[in-house]
Amino acid sequence: MAVTDIATRTYDHGWRLDPIVRSLLDTDFYKLLMLQMIRHLHPDVQATFALINRSKAIRLAEVIDERELREQLDHARTLRFGKKELIWLAGNSFYGRERMFSPDFIAWLADFRLPEYQLRIVDGQFELTFDGPWTDTSMWEVPALAIVNELRSRAVLRGKGRFALDILYARGKARLWGKVERLRQLPDLVISDFGTRRRHGFLWQRWCVEALKEGLGERFIGTSNVLLAMDNDLEAIGTNAHELPMVQAALADDDAGVAVAPYRVLEDWRAHYDGNLLIALPDAFGTAAFLRNAPDWLADWTGFRPDSAPPIAGGEQIIAWWQAHGRDPRDKLLIFSDGMDVESIEATYRHFHGRVRMSFGWGTNLTNDFRDCDPDGAHGLEPISLVAKVIRANGRPAVKLSDNPAKATGDPTEIARYLRIFGGDGRAETKVEV
Amino acid sequence: MAVTDIATRTYDHGWRLDPIVRSLLDTDFYKLLMLQMIRHLHPDVQATFALINRSKAIRLAEVIDERELREQLDHARTLRFGKKELIWLAGNSFYGRERMFSPDFIAWLADFRLPEYQLRIVDGQFELTFDGPWTDTSMWEVPALAIVNELRSRAVLRGKGRFALDILYARGKARLWGKVERLRQLPDLVISDFGTRRRHGFLWQRWCVEALKEGLGERFIGTSNVLLAMDNDLEAIGTNAHELPMVQAALADDDAGVAVAPYRVLEDWRAHYDGNLLIALPDAFGTAAFLRNAPDWLADWTGFRPDSAPPIAGGEQIIAWWQAHGRDPRDKLLIFSDGMDVESIEATYRHFHGRVRMSFGWGTNLTNDFRDCDPDGAHGLEPISLVAKVIRANGRPAVKLSDNPAKATGDPTEIARYLRIFGGDGRAETKVEV
Repeated sequence: MAVTDIATRTYDHGWRLDPIVRSLLDTDFYKLLMLQMIRHLHPDVQATFALINRSKAIRLAEVIDERELREQLDHARTLRFGKKELIWLAGNSFYGRERMFSPDFIAWLADFRLPEYQLRIVDGQFELTFDGPWTDTSMWEVPALAIVNELRSRAVLRGKGRFALDILYARGKARLWGKVERLRQLPDLVISDFGTRRRHGFLWQRWCVEALKEGLGERFIGTSNVLLAMDNDLEAIGTNAHELPMVQAALADDDAGVAVAPYRVLEDWRAHYDGNLLIALPDAFGTAAFLRNAPDWLADWTGFRPDSAPPIAGGEQIIAWWQAHGRDPRDKLLIFSDGMDVESIEATYRHFHGRVRMSFGWGTNLTNDFRDCDPDGAHGLEPISLVAKVIRANGRPAVKLSDNPAKATGDPTEIARYLRIFGGDGRAETKVEV
Repeated sequence: MAVTDIATRTYDHGWRLDPIVRSLLDTDFYKLLMLQMIRHLHPDVQATFALINRSKAIRLAEVIDERELREQLDHARTLRFGKKELIWLAGNSFYGRERMFSPDFIAWLADFRLPEYQLRIVDGQFELTFDGPWTDTSMWEVPALAIVNELRSRAVLRGKGRFALDILYARGKARLWGKVERLRQLPDLVISDFGTRRRHGFLWQRWCVEALKEGLGERFIGTSNVLLAMDNDLEAIGTNAHELPMVQAALADDDAGVAVAPYRVLEDWRAHYDGNLLIALPDAFGTAAFLRNAPDWLADWTGFRPDSAPPIAGGEQIIAWWQAHGRDPRDKLLIFSDGMDVESIEATYRHFHGRVRMSFGWGTNLTNDFRDCDPDGAHGLEPISLVAKVIRANGRPAVKLSDNPAKATGDPTEIARYLRIFGGDGRAETKVEV
């Protein structure tokens, strides 16, 4: 007898859509940490976020149906934090610290919903922007990216036979497990999942996280995805992102204000968080400029997250800075998170092993590596370099220089101004794969 | 809401056992073809079949629980041919021929059941034998092998986590699809599934057959498994096996009778079947001896299935014989079925392409290749060389010499006698992998 649960089948075929984002916790942990500070210090700042597809050859609006995109974005706007979710945020400890989120912030989250979006198609690309209070628009970054990426996967896979899908996922699983077996050879590895925004799909990310938990044991310290952290009793991982110095700099009244913006942000951060959260992101306007003018107290922080320089060169630069400030790098932490994959993790690990503490944030190449897995030999599942960046704050343009000019964002005139302020030394163009 | 079909779950956990063989059609097609002839010509011959584990290092009785083995064998004895199955056997055409099986034979099948078995454990191995009319005991060969092989898989996999199983099967699928993609490069390939007896499990064989159907298209001509052929609208593939000349020779009253037994069998076969079924198995007592004394009319047959000589050498030997008999090998068919895998299929195909028609029967390395797939790195899933052979007919010992002495079966004194009758030329020991 073929067993079918008729009630379930009937329920399933009545779905209007298969939601991609089903919880507001399905986002990166650092968004919540930043949000608490933004709400405290900048409750009235208006910030605009925009989707930016750096893989211009992929004409997303020709792959993804606009109506489907709107349906998914609309569905995400219906979400509220659930009672269980808020209780967990309030009651769980993060990085060993109790009550990371204040009761006042938790109460505010209870009423949170994602703000409106603006969507139009320009030259085959989606122009997707979010206008409004920084506290609201910031929260669109991760779900918007996850939605666009998963809609692209779905579009590519639509119409494939059950068998082709079976092979595709079998290969994806075999591929990831091969990576797990290589990473297992690194005894002191510390690694976490940073793959929410670029994931192939939610269910696949969940499988990947379960795979790392199963295969890497203690080496796998957690996930940036708050929902997956909660559901799997894993640590939620993350600190802060480029939007903090970008907005701070955009809000500055003059060049001097722009120049000190990155440090001002870190002072604010230190006032809000401590312990393992004292991780600085050095590359918003170029790491060389950042380190040259960095205050000595920053050398007391736990570490840095170099996010656009090549990992070994970027790490050496920071180690040299610690040494110049009389600190022992072996007490310090470097978090590598820019397009890492097994090869670069192995090379970076071996290069720095014993000289500095390391942690790896593994993103796109963890949760979206189906390269050459399609049994039909078709393409379209290669991950693309899609970001959602703050582009304006209180009407003023926001800029990111990055160590890699290919990752810079902002108006060219403003970029030129920022380059005059910070200098461009040490920046080097590298192809952005993911 | 987690959806569970409670009725199904409740039904499932009430199972006394999970049956390995659920239909008498879950056997090789050649058993039915041979059975029809045996029943016609030798209804009173008593034949004993025995399980022979050529992989002696694997102490099967220490891996498989005797009680579970008995339960599965007992369950197989409860099976009858179903009404739908008999209608299909009667109504389907095989090799383009209608009514391959006579109404009388179909009626006899309706009452068929597998006979009793004798099981004991000797030195860590199962001594499993089947005594009775040849018409009954012959039918144990395939289900007995499938049961022992799947029980071994189950024993190795018992206690593995859900995740390890997920990786294991993902790797198995990726492995097989890689083979499919290689075989697809051979434009004139003709291949079928011969993997029932050595399969990892029934569900896995079914998946493999579906994979070949999906991936190889017209190159995949069918399966030896009658049940899978029926369920998937595939051709049932197969002709005859060593048991025919082995019993015929065992029944002979003197050496002269033994010497002509292989040809006598083929005359009987020709009287029963024709067309594509005119395939001779040359190696029961050594191919060189067989060809040396073979009658000229055999050169009019469709082809040969060399089953123990190395494929290229064995094929050349037969081509030379056809040429010596003035036949054009390009009109003839060679079926290669001895432990084939992608490498040997490719090599054989390339070697003979354009010189002879070829067909490949792909067995163990199709349906049971999980080498190095276990994420725990454990062993135990490597296929073993397990056969079930006729060992006695009407109380007289049966012998197989084979082209490969490692595959010979029978009492040493009798083997010596057969070697005197047939000569041992051309036989060469090769390691039996599967």
